[in-house]
Amino acid sequence: MEVQLLSRPHQLIYKLNNIMMIQKKLERSRSHRAPARHIRVLNQRMDSIKKTPVKIPERNTLRIIPIGGLEEVGRNMTALEYNDHILIIDMGLQFPEEDMPGIDYIIPNIKYFEGKEDRIDGVIITHAHYDHIGGIPHLIPRLKNPPLYGTDLTCAIIKKRQDDFKNFGPALDLNIIKNDTKLRLGIWNVEFFGVSHNIPASLGVIVRTPEGIVVHTGDFKIDERSDIAGVTELDKLAAISKEGVLLLMSDSTNAREIGHQYSEVEIKTELEEIIKNSTGRLIIGTFASLLGRLNQIIQVGAKYGKKIIIEGRSMKANIEIARELGYITIPKNTVIPAEEMHKYKKSEIMVLGTGAQGEENAVLMRIANREHRLINVERGDTFVFSSSVIPGNERTVQRLTDKLYREGADVINYRMMDIHAGGHAKQEDLRKMIETIKPKFFMPIEGNHSFLQIHGKVAQRAGYTNANILIADNGQIVSCKNGICAVTKERVPSEYVFVDGLGVGDSGEVVLRDRQMMSEHGMFVIIALVDGKTGKVKGSPDIISRGFVYLRESKELLHVTRQKIREIIEHSASTEGTINWSYVRDVVREKIGQFLFTKTKKRPMVLPVIVEV
Amino acid sequence: MEVQLLSRPHQLIYKLNNIMMIQKKLERSRSHRAPARHIRVLNQRMDSIKKTPVKIPERNTLRIIPIGGLEEVGRNMTALEYNDHILIIDMGLQFPEEDMPGIDYIIPNIKYFEGKEDRIDGVIITHAHYDHIGGIPHLIPRLKNPPLYGTDLTCAIIKKRQDDFKNFGPALDLNIIKNDTKLRLGIWNVEFFGVSHNIPASLGVIVRTPEGIVVHTGDFKIDERSDIAGVTELDKLAAISKEGVLLLMSDSTNAREIGHQYSEVEIKTELEEIIKNSTGRLIIGTFASLLGRLNQIIQVGAKYGKKIIIEGRSMKANIEIARELGYITIPKNTVIPAEEMHKYKKSEIMVLGTGAQGEENAVLMRIANREHRLINVERGDTFVFSSSVIPGNERTVQRLTDKLYREGADVINYRMMDIHAGGHAKQEDLRKMIETIKPKFFMPIEGNHSFLQIHGKVAQRAGYTNANILIADNGQIVSCKNGICAVTKERVPSEYVFVDGLGVGDSGEVVLRDRQMMSEHGMFVIIALVDGKTGKVKGSPDIISRGFVYLRESKELLHVTRQKIREIIEHSASTEGTINWSYVRDVVREKIGQFLFTKTKKRPMVLPVIVEV
Repeated sequence: MEVQLLSRPHQLIYKLNNIMMIQKKLERSRSHRAPARHIRVLNQRMDSIKKTPVKIPERNTLRIIPIGGLEEVGRNMTALEYNDHILIIDMGLQFPEEDMPGIDYIIPNIKYFEGKEDRIDGVIITHAHYDHIGGIPHLIPRLKNPPLYGTDLTCAIIKKRQDDFKNFGPALDLNIIKNDTKLRLGIWNVEFFGVSHNIPASLGVIVRTPEGIVVHTGDFKIDERSDIAGVTELDKLAAISKEGVLLLMSDSTNAREIGHQYSEVEIKTELEEIIKNSTGRLIIGTFASLLGRLNQIIQVGAKYGKKIIIEGRSMKANIEIARELGYITIPKNTVIPAEEMHKYKKSEIMVLGTGAQGEENAVLMRIANREHRLINVERGDTFVFSSSVIPGNERTVQRLTDKLYREGADVINYRMMDIHAGGHAKQEDLRKMIETIKPKFFMPIEGNHSFLQIHGKVAQRAGYTNANILIADNGQIVSCKNGICAVTKERVPSEYVFVDGLGVGDSGEVVLRDRQMMSEHGMFVIIALVDGKTGKVKGSPDIISRGFVYLRESKELLHVTRQKIREIIEHSASTEGTINWSYVRDVVREKIGQFLFTKTKKRPMVLPVIVEV
Repeated sequence: MEVQLLSRPHQLIYKLNNIMMIQKKLERSRSHRAPARHIRVLNQRMDSIKKTPVKIPERNTLRIIPIGGLEEVGRNMTALEYNDHILIIDMGLQFPEEDMPGIDYIIPNIKYFEGKEDRIDGVIITHAHYDHIGGIPHLIPRLKNPPLYGTDLTCAIIKKRQDDFKNFGPALDLNIIKNDTKLRLGIWNVEFFGVSHNIPASLGVIVRTPEGIVVHTGDFKIDERSDIAGVTELDKLAAISKEGVLLLMSDSTNAREIGHQYSEVEIKTELEEIIKNSTGRLIIGTFASLLGRLNQIIQVGAKYGKKIIIEGRSMKANIEIARELGYITIPKNTVIPAEEMHKYKKSEIMVLGTGAQGEENAVLMRIANREHRLINVERGDTFVFSSSVIPGNERTVQRLTDKLYREGADVINYRMMDIHAGGHAKQEDLRKMIETIKPKFFMPIEGNHSFLQIHGKVAQRAGYTNANILIADNGQIVSCKNGICAVTKERVPSEYVFVDGLGVGDSGEVVLRDRQMMSEHGMFVIIALVDGKTGKVKGSPDIISRGFVYLRESKELLHVTRQKIREIIEHSASTEGTINWSYVRDVVREKIGQFLFTKTKKRPMVLPVIVEV
C-alpha cells in the first residue's frame, strides 16, 4: 500500500476522494430516507471504485478512452491516448431522461483531461448532429481550445451554434477537412471516409497509431441503391482492410434492428405518396438537423410543383448553410415566404417547420395553437410528424393530435421523420461493415449497453469470438499493445455532467433527487419562533407548503399540524439544559414527516426552520 | 334573463360558480406568472362555459352522459338518464400522464350526480380491467352505494380489490350476471352479450330505453378463428339489429390500427415459438389483469412440460380467482412453488410475474436487482416483457434491459404482453360491429378525441353520414328524442379528479403546477426577521433552497442574494409610515426571482417569509 502511495500518488488521491465523496452521499441519502434504488446505486458505485486498481498509464500503449456513448444514445466522445498524445473524436450531448427534471442536457465528463490539456493534438468531429457536437461550447474552452476538424458543413453548423455561447471563451479553432484529407496531428496520422447518414458531409475516421490502424465509423448507414444521403466508401475501407486494421469502433444505434436499413429510394417513394396525395396544405414537422431528409422533402415538393414555406429559426439557418455550401439545391420559385402563401392554391402549399415532437414553441405547435404570425391551422390541412415520440413528449403530441383533429385537420404519423430513422445501419449493414474492414478487434460504440451486446452478437455471426469483441462501459479503458487489445479494469471519470440553465455540472444527484421528491409530494416548510431560554414556541408556527395538498381545503390538517409542531418542539427542547437546536430540528422533521404521511399517504419534503428569539 | 333565473336556478348558480372559479384561477395564474399554456386553457374553458346554455333536462328524452373515456384511454364511465332514472355503465380509472407528478390515478367526476343519487337504478360493469372498475371504491360510497352488476369474475376481482379500501364505506352491493341475464332496473330493460377480450367474462350491454335500443360494446375484439379469449356474440347482435337499434356506442381504443386484430391462434403460435425455443429459464413479466394472456401462457407452458412459478401478490390472487371460477384450468403438476425450483432443470422452468413495464417493486425488477427472496437473474435466463412501454417508464425499462444483458441474460420484447395488444378491435373489426348492429346513430367511445374521429371515418366507410355519427367530449350530453339523437351543447362537469395518496380531488391544478415548477427549477425560501418599527433586517436572512442549485458550490451566489434581500426589504419597507408587509413580500419575490434568473437562467419558486420581531 505504501509503495503504491509513493509511485502513483495522483491516482490514489483521486480514488480516495471518490470513495469519501460516495461515503458522504450515502450518509446523506440514508439520513434523508432516500429511495432504496438510490442507495443501491451508490453502493454499487462504491464497490466498483474500491475494485478499480490504481495505476499509471503504461508507456507505449494505445489507450482507447470512451468518455461517453457506451451506455446511451448521445454524448458521444472517444479519446485515443498514446504516451503524451491525445486525439479526441466527437464531443456530443445527450438529452435528459424522464428522471432528470429541469436538466437541459448532459455533456461528457472531461475530468480525465484536467492537467493534460496540452497533450490534446486535435478534436475530430464526424458530423454536425447534437449528439456529436453539442458539448463543444461547454468543453472546448476548458480544454484550452484545441483545434477542431470537420467537414465544411460540420464546421459551419458548429460555428452557427457558437453564436448562442458567445461569452463562453475564445473563438473556436475550426479547420475544414474533406473525405480525402490526410492529417498529421502529433503522432496521429488521420484519414477519413465518407459515410451515408441523414445529414450530409458525414465522415468516419481512420487513425494510424503506433499500435496499428483504428477505424471509427461515426454514425453511418449503407445504402447500395441510392447516393441521396451520401455514400459509405466501402471501397476505401476494403483497401484499408488489406493493410490490416487493429480495431473497428462501430455505430450501434440501430443494432437491435434486423435486416438492412431502408434505402433513400424507398423513403423517397413514401414521401412522394404523401406529397402527391395531399389535397390541402401539407405541414411537415421535423428536426432542423435532419438536413438529409429536409433536402429530400424539398426535392420531391419541387417535383410536384409545391410552394414551400420554411419556418423556424434553426431550420431556416441550417437550410441556408447547406444551400450556401451546395449540399441542398433549391429549385427556382420553390421556396416562398409565408407572406405570399395566399397567392397560391391550398393544395400547392407545403410548410416545413420544427416540431416533430410537439415541442412547446416549435412551429408546428404555434400553428396548431393559432399563435403563429402568419399560418394557422385550417380545415383540410394535413400535418405530418414523427411517429416515435421522445419520452416525456407523448402527452403533448397526443394533445396536439387531438387538437388538430378538432380543427378539421388530418394527421399522418410518419416514421421517417424520426431522428434516428433511416440514418443508422441495421444488423445486416453492420455485419457488412465488419466484414469489409475485417478488423482484428471489434468494439461496438454509440448505444446502450444492451445495444452493444446485440452488436457484439452480430460480430459473432461474422465469425468473431468473445476475446476479440470488446464491450466496455463509459470511462472504461481499452488498451492495445503488441497487436492485442483488451478491455481493462481501469476507469476514468464518466459521471453525468448536467447543463442546467447557466450552470454546468452544478446540479448534482442531490439537486435532482430533491426535484423529484418535490415533484412527487411537494414540500412543507415550518417556521417556528422559539424562546431561546424557555424553549417555548412564540405565536403560531408558520407553514409554507407547495405541491403537497391544496391548502385552502386543508385547514383542519394545518391546524392539527401546527399544534403537533408546538408540542414536538417544546417537548424535545425541554429535555436538557442548553437546547440542541439541530436535534430539535431533526425531531420535528422526522415526526411531522411521519404525521403527514399517516394523514395523507404522501411524503412532502419537510424543512423545519427554528428561529431563536 | 330573470325568467331564466326563476325557472332554472340551480343550473344558473352552477354556471356562475364555475365562471367565478375560473376567474379566480386566471387571476392567480397571472400573478404567479403561470405558463401561457395554462392561461390559454383557462380562457378556453371560460369561453366554453359562457357559451353553455342553462337549461333543465327536457322531460321524456333519453340523455347519454359520457362522464369519461371520450378524451383518453381510461376512466370510462357513461350514464343514461331518462326523467328520474339513471343507469351507469362502468366506473374506471385513468393512469396519470407525465405532467401529473405524484398523482396515483384519475377517476371520473361525479358532480353531476350530486343530489340525484337516489335516481341511480344500477351500475353495470362490463369487465374487470382498471379502466372500467378502478373508480368504484372512491365513487360508489359517494353515490349512496347503488347496486353493481357484473359477471362472476368481474365481481370477484372488484371484491378482492375492495380489500385495499376497507374503510371507504359499506360493503358493495355486488350482483352477478351472465351473458344471458335479463335485468329490469327502474325503467331500463338490460340484456348482455359476450365479447372477446383479453380478460375472460367480458360483456357488452344492450339497454332497452323508452326511446329505443342502445348498445354499448365495452371493450371488445372479434376473433373468428378462436374462442380462447371468449366469443363476441355477433349472432345475438344480428338478432337485436332486426329489432332496430337506436344508438351504438363502440370501443375506439384500437381505431387507429388498420385491418383486423390478431387471432388468439396467431398469438398462441408466437408464444409457442418463445416457450419451445427457450434453453434456460424463461421469466415472463406481464400485467396481473391480462388474465386471458396469462391463461394462454400457462396452457402453452404445460404443453411443453414447463414447471411454472407464479409470483406477485396481485397475479397470484387473480389467477386463483380465475381458477376457482373455472376460467383458467391449471394442468396437474404444472404450477410449482418457487421453493421447489431447484428440483428441476433450468430449461424446464418458467416464471410468470408482474413487471412488464419495469415497475419498481414488481417481480421482474426484484429478480433483476437480486432483491427477490428466491429467484435471482442468472446467465442463460431469458426475460420476456412488453415492447411498448407506458410513458414515464422508458428509462427504467432500458435500465432493466441493460442490467439483464450485463448479467448474461437475454431479453425479448414481445408485443403481446402489452396491455392493449390483442384485446381491442381494429378498423375492419369495428366496421363489422357497425355493420352487424346497423344502428341508426353511431357514437365512438373509449379513446382520445382523434381516435373517436378516426373511428367516425370507419363508420363513414360503412355508409354513415356525419349527421348520424355522434362525436362528443367528456361531459357533453347526447340527447335522443323521437328517434333522433344529437350531440348537444349541454355539458356536465368532467374535470379531472385526482387520487393522490389518501386525498381524492384535493390536488388541483395549483398543486400540480407547483409540483411541476419545483421539479423544473426547485424552490427558494427566504426567511427574514425584520424589526417591526424600523424596517431593518435583523441578522442575516435564512435561505432554504432545494432542487435549484447545489448550495455547497454556490456560496458566492447565496452571499450576494442575502445582501440583495436585505437591501430590497429595507428599501421597500422604508417608503411609508406603517409597513405594508404583503407589499414587501411581493417585491422580494419578484426582484429576487428576477435576480436569480439573471444569475442562473433558472426560475425557482421564490417564497419569502418575513417575520416581524
